[in-house]
Amino acid sequence: MDNNKELTNKKNMPTDVVTIVGVGLISGSFALALKEKGFAKKIIGVSRTAASLKKAKELGIIDEALPLEEAVKQSDFIYVAIPVDATVPVMKQVMDLITDKQMVADAGSTKFALCDAVKDHPMRRRFIATHPMWGTEYSGPEAAVRGAFEGRACVICEKEKTDVGVVDTIENIYKSLGMNIVYMDAHAHDIHAAYISHISHITSFALANTVLEKEREDDAIFALAGGGFESTVRLAKSNSAMWAPIFMQNRENVLDVLNEHISQLKKFKASLEKENMEYLTELMENANRIKRIFK
Amino acid sequence: MDNNKELTNKKNMPTDVVTIVGVGLISGSFALALKEKGFAKKIIGVSRTAASLKKAKELGIIDEALPLEEAVKQSDFIYVAIPVDATVPVMKQVMDLITDKQMVADAGSTKFALCDAVKDHPMRRRFIATHPMWGTEYSGPEAAVRGAFEGRACVICEKEKTDVGVVDTIENIYKSLGMNIVYMDAHAHDIHAAYISHISHITSFALANTVLEKEREDDAIFALAGGGFESTVRLAKSNSAMWAPIFMQNRENVLDVLNEHISQLKKFKASLEKENMEYLTELMENANRIKRIFK
Repeated sequence: MDNNKELTNKKNMPTDVVTIVGVGLISGSFALALKEKGFAKKIIGVSRTAASLKKAKELGIIDEALPLEEAVKQSDFIYVAIPVDATVPVMKQVMDLITDKQMVADAGSTKFALCDAVKDHPMRRRFIATHPMWGTEYSGPEAAVRGAFEGRACVICEKEKTDVGVVDTIENIYKSLGMNIVYMDAHAHDIHAAYISHISHITSFALANTVLEKEREDDAIFALAGGGFESTVRLAKSNSAMWAPIFMQNRENVLDVLNEHISQLKKFKASLEKENMEYLTELMENANRIKRIFK
Repeated sequence: MDNNKELTNKKNMPTDVVTIVGVGLISGSFALALKEKGFAKKIIGVSRTAASLKKAKELGIIDEALPLEEAVKQSDFIYVAIPVDATVPVMKQVMDLITDKQMVADAGSTKFALCDAVKDHPMRRRFIATHPMWGTEYSGPEAAVRGAFEGRACVICEKEKTDVGVVDTIENIYKSLGMNIVYMDAHAHDIHAAYISHISHITSFALANTVLEKEREDDAIFALAGGGFESTVRLAKSNSAMWAPIFMQNRENVLDVLNEHISQLKKFKASLEKENMEYLTELMENANRIKRIFK
């Protein structure tokens, strides 16, 4: 592939018509932003769920709903934001349909499995692997919000495997949304994501289960729950259809972090069992170092 | 003690002069609210830390700093909000100093040890055990804020062991601050507090340690950390001088909850190790039930 020719093509390439595959929290918020910032004139929605398409149209997220093949045919840019297990086959399907005048991105929370699955595809250079690190615990088109992504990081993986023009166009969009671009290889992304995102979700799910298990006979007690509990358990409301495939696809890294986390909890347990105030204090003061990251 | 006489006394009892023992997050926010709502004309601060007293005066939290004995002598109401291990001896000291025209409350996150320690004190009926369930991860007089406590629960323990007049006065204050009063025995309080407050702090401390342990060589990675991570790890900034004594004083309950939490995490671990998507999804859907508590 002639990169110079690609680059020339790209300079004139619009993102006038965009297809979002999946009409939910991320794709919906992204679509709203594309329209607001003037990147897209028309948004086409693709989903297996008719009710979501209907809702997305009502909410002004999409202009039209079409089957995947027809949608791709009409689009300059296809944005795939569906659960990561479905992303792999759907992305291959999309890449089989596009020409080298079109481009496609994903927004998944794992990157290695997808990058590996498409690495030898003839349209690899028209695909860009992205992970805009923003989200809420809600899902579906109703969860889409304006002003999402602002101030957060967006990871782009294997930049060198994507045409420069595609990279420029997509970076420009994410930057316009207020995101900071971070480059990383797919494997490194998945390790870091396990630490700073996936484990938070698992601890939150497990904490909810802990409390629900013990407090089941006494709902009134939740009247007591203060802000600390609510913020720690907030992520436990997250959608299992989205998160179970993430944990499973990133299971080796997630297991590493989970093992480390369990062993950190066991240190607290040991300090309490031994009534070792000094050790307990030391563990907490070590954790306080997180202040240097979050003021 | 003649309760009717007490009640008569109490109707005329002002909280014009209030001593706060400890000048930090809780006592400072409480003092600001007392002034704002017109409950106190003068606030006296007691602390072992001269710098905190100076700061509290600068911030308008206290009008004067005095040693404990002198402060108590001048006060209608003494509010003790210091680490729970120090509360037990200090509360006894305060109760040795007061007359039956004065009253005293604590604001501690554990209740059984304190209630047990003062149960036979001659001034027991002038003491009320309270736990206003509000806080932030910050500490010291600088952490005190106006409008704290609003909309949160305040637990009052062993109400029946306190004079009706004292209960009425203190409830009136907390209600004016926008709190919902919840009655509970001290043992039940400590169990519930372990579930909905203490364990959240431990998981947050342990999560911070997990991430700091593994990500220590790559600070830049924290650029990636999104809102989910930040909310889960927020409590790890909490003050060890306040929280270590809470965990230690409530260690049996905290250990019960911690063991349950570790076993819940191990279920996630098992589901990942066995690549059991169905079980993983079931664990997450169970956790989703927390939605019925927090919308």
